[in-house]
Amino acid sequence: MLNYARKTTLAAVDGLSVAELDHLHDDSSNSIGALLAHIAAVERGYQLVTFEERQPSAQENATWEPALKLGAEGRRVLRNKPLEHYVHDLNEVRRVTLDALAARDDAWLEQPLRAAPAMNAHFAWFHVAEDEISHRGQMRWLRSRLGSAATR
Amino acid sequence: MLNYARKTTLAAVDGLSVAELDHLHDDSSNSIGALLAHIAAVERGYQLVTFEERQPSAQENATWEPALKLGAEGRRVLRNKPLEHYVHDLNEVRRVTLDALAARDDAWLEQPLRAAPAMNAHFAWFHVAEDEISHRGQMRWLRSRLGSAATR
Repeated sequence: MLNYARKTTLAAVDGLSVAELDHLHDDSSNSIGALLAHIAAVERGYQLVTFEERQPSAQENATWEPALKLGAEGRRVLRNKPLEHYVHDLNEVRRVTLDALAARDDAWLEQPLRAAPAMNAHFAWFHVAEDEISHRGQMRWLRSRLGSAATR
Repeated sequence: MLNYARKTTLAAVDGLSVAELDHLHDDSSNSIGALLAHIAAVERGYQLVTFEERQPSAQENATWEPALKLGAEGRRVLRNKPLEHYVHDLNEVRRVTLDALAARDDAWLEQPLRAAPAMNAHFAWFHVAEDEISHRGQMRWLRSRLGSAATR
């Protein structure tokens, strides 16, 4: 499910230029590039909680905050990167996820998480896919309206 | 996963008026109401393929087409309904899904579908949730921009 969701995300952004990735549909929109950075940051965050069994440090939180929270700070700093940059980050993060999942069994998946006891790893990873799919829906919508708004 | 996705969909539209459900963000947008009708129609379609092991009839296709395909015809006919109408349809369709899933086992879930041999029921129902989540992402985006655009 994670890989299927990712395939559809990459298809949704295939071929976009830097201007298209940076385009803001309106004053409160996130760019498609920022949403790609968000997807990678969410996955990294859930790696900590599920595999490393800890919450992010203050420094990690500060580093990831623009991508995790999006909004004004995301609009300011998540820009001027080619598609390859985002795809590279997504691939690097995903490689760690797949390796870590392969090293664990289904019993692990169902146990409450020590760093977040209200959920288990199964829900956590479903939620990672769910958040990505939700933003992919937004990216498709935004992409279909790029038109001539973004300079290619 | 189906139920969690549904919970987040209903939360995303909670309290919307008819005008808000019908509001079109731009000329090519689907209304939030139309997206809710789409979610119910997709689920009904996959019930046929997975539980009834058949493709929809020509008449079923004609009935569901505006909700399944959305676009201009959806904008024309999927209107003037209160939230309760959409929620009622979603609940009715979901009840059938949960009853039918409860009557089947995991082996059934993994078998290729007779009416669509390229997939199994597990993928089909993941896809139903995935499509709903993707449109929920769009509904959240659209809702946050309703502002005063829709007369309450």
